[in-house]
Amino acid sequence: MNQLTSSGYNIYFDNTLSSLENFLAENSYSKVFIITDENTGKYCLPVLQNKLPNLDNYDIIEIPYGEENKNIDFCIGIWKMLLDFEADRNALVINLGGGVVTDMGSFAASTYKRGIDFLQIPTTLLSQVDASVGGKTGIDIDSVKNIIGTFAQPKAVIICDEFIETLPENQLISGFAEVIKHGIIADNVYYNEVVKLASPKEITIAQIKRSVEIKNEVVLEDPFEKGLRKILNFGHTIGHAIESWSLENDSKSLTHGEAIAIGMITEAYIANKTGMLSVEELNIIKNDILKFFPKYSLKSDIYDVLLEIMQHDKKNISGKINFSLPDKIGNCKFNIVVSHDLIKESLDYYRNI
Amino acid sequence: MNQLTSSGYNIYFDNTLSSLENFLAENSYSKVFIITDENTGKYCLPVLQNKLPNLDNYDIIEIPYGEENKNIDFCIGIWKMLLDFEADRNALVINLGGGVVTDMGSFAASTYKRGIDFLQIPTTLLSQVDASVGGKTGIDIDSVKNIIGTFAQPKAVIICDEFIETLPENQLISGFAEVIKHGIIADNVYYNEVVKLASPKEITIAQIKRSVEIKNEVVLEDPFEKGLRKILNFGHTIGHAIESWSLENDSKSLTHGEAIAIGMITEAYIANKTGMLSVEELNIIKNDILKFFPKYSLKSDIYDVLLEIMQHDKKNISGKINFSLPDKIGNCKFNIVVSHDLIKESLDYYRNI
Repeated sequence: MNQLTSSGYNIYFDNTLSSLENFLAENSYSKVFIITDENTGKYCLPVLQNKLPNLDNYDIIEIPYGEENKNIDFCIGIWKMLLDFEADRNALVINLGGGVVTDMGSFAASTYKRGIDFLQIPTTLLSQVDASVGGKTGIDIDSVKNIIGTFAQPKAVIICDEFIETLPENQLISGFAEVIKHGIIADNVYYNEVVKLASPKEITIAQIKRSVEIKNEVVLEDPFEKGLRKILNFGHTIGHAIESWSLENDSKSLTHGEAIAIGMITEAYIANKTGMLSVEELNIIKNDILKFFPKYSLKSDIYDVLLEIMQHDKKNISGKINFSLPDKIGNCKFNIVVSHDLIKESLDYYRNI
Repeated sequence: MNQLTSSGYNIYFDNTLSSLENFLAENSYSKVFIITDENTGKYCLPVLQNKLPNLDNYDIIEIPYGEENKNIDFCIGIWKMLLDFEADRNALVINLGGGVVTDMGSFAASTYKRGIDFLQIPTTLLSQVDASVGGKTGIDIDSVKNIIGTFAQPKAVIICDEFIETLPENQLISGFAEVIKHGIIADNVYYNEVVKLASPKEITIAQIKRSVEIKNEVVLEDPFEKGLRKILNFGHTIGHAIESWSLENDSKSLTHGEAIAIGMITEAYIANKTGMLSVEELNIIKNDILKFFPKYSLKSDIYDVLLEIMQHDKKNISGKINFSLPDKIGNCKFNIVVSHDLIKESLDYYRNI
């Protein structure tokens, strides 16, 4: 079996879903709940049901598709469904979906009756390489991303690349930003390999596994984000702010990956300006990212709003905006405080590309 | 300093509040939030401010008084206040109040930005001997008590008996049921001592400390309620159901202690009927409890509703109703499944006292 070990659980790379079958056979749960969204309920649930004809005694909890639904109202909905269907402490929740389902489903499970078991079956590239590993659960409040959450480990993560083959291109590309990020912060060779792909569609299960492996190694070393784990935030300080703003204001919001792509270019610029990253590598990063993520038309009159959102980022202490920045492709530093002026300058840099 | 050690934190019995002063001096928090309810804001907060004239840079979050407010709406209110006042990960929450404030305040703190530090300063006898120790946080949903919560440890618990002197009699008596419970489940000598008091008002700080000590010892041995900790649920299977029902239906709801008193008498009856507890000790328990807790007029037409609520109790697995029952005063067993008929019979027993 192709697998990685994380803190107390396994991550299976398994197209047959036999790991799920084994898991259910080895554990006697009183009831199984499968959380899906409209899309995964339609496209992924049948695959699961088809591969597990013996799976009975389960209930489906479906939430609407989209990041804007990762909020407390739908979380309360999940809690009430669990209560109505009499989920006891020995029940299992299976989160079958992208980051919204895995983040919110695991937050709901980790707080229902002070915590019941849950499995992650991430169905998007983004959730496979990012949200499903690391024990972070979360929901948004007032568009502040993941502001409420817990640290809670799943019983297992199952990555089946059959699911991502059904994804539309823009969903694939959203996860691909994290793949590039993993290369920049930890593995120069891997970076060169993935940016050479003609399209994110060509990503292989081995490459997905390498991405998960990088994240897993970082997280195992620093589960509660006291230090090293912060390197995973490269591209996310500015990226998250742009994502939040876009979610509220754009008629067609940026995906997470599209926002992180902008975040990586602007933050690479900051890394260069603070003397960490060479101008050559800044240009490599910028050009490679633009190959996959077309330029977004960023407005200069939203800079102050973006800075305001960054200050609310839960990673900050005492109002200072903290960055994780690469000093070369393949290595990243953290806890770097950057001035508001330099942040604005990096946004100008992006606008003037 | 008069103190106990729990898992990773201290419990101080400290009327001067110097332990709080020391704690704040030893830790540099970016901001301090004090959560109170209307009553503790009026009566306890001034005591705290008076004893800590140097405490500055703090914000007050006040919630309305009463168990019915321990719900997700007020919890969201706390989260949003923390967000609005820019609480970062290095902020501290001080919960100054009874069980509603300590349970909900610690749930809010343990999930805000995936967990910030919190202190418990329980101000009622009930919260001092019960809610403040053991690392359980929680809120109610649809009147199902503590159905959503986390396991999270405070940084310290400070018990100042000056606060409970200001309590009305019915609040004192509510906590006194837990004091009696601690005697029944773990310490025969302590039981005899506390039931001899003319009134709960006469409880001493040493007796409060003994009660906390009993709970603390149980909890340290079994933090996640896999086994032994369940003995703390004596009186609570039936008691919680009656409390929930009363909260929804009585014009003047039972306090937690009044409900648990009924729970202890009915469950002692069940212990006797299952051959565990002698009839003599059943009578002792019944008479001692009735001395402090006048008989409640229980209606026989609500039995099925009570059973329904018991089945939803988060401690149950596969719909079986689990009890913790004493085999003598000073010792308790757990994981005892009891039939619906015997539960109804125990309610009849109480009605016919």
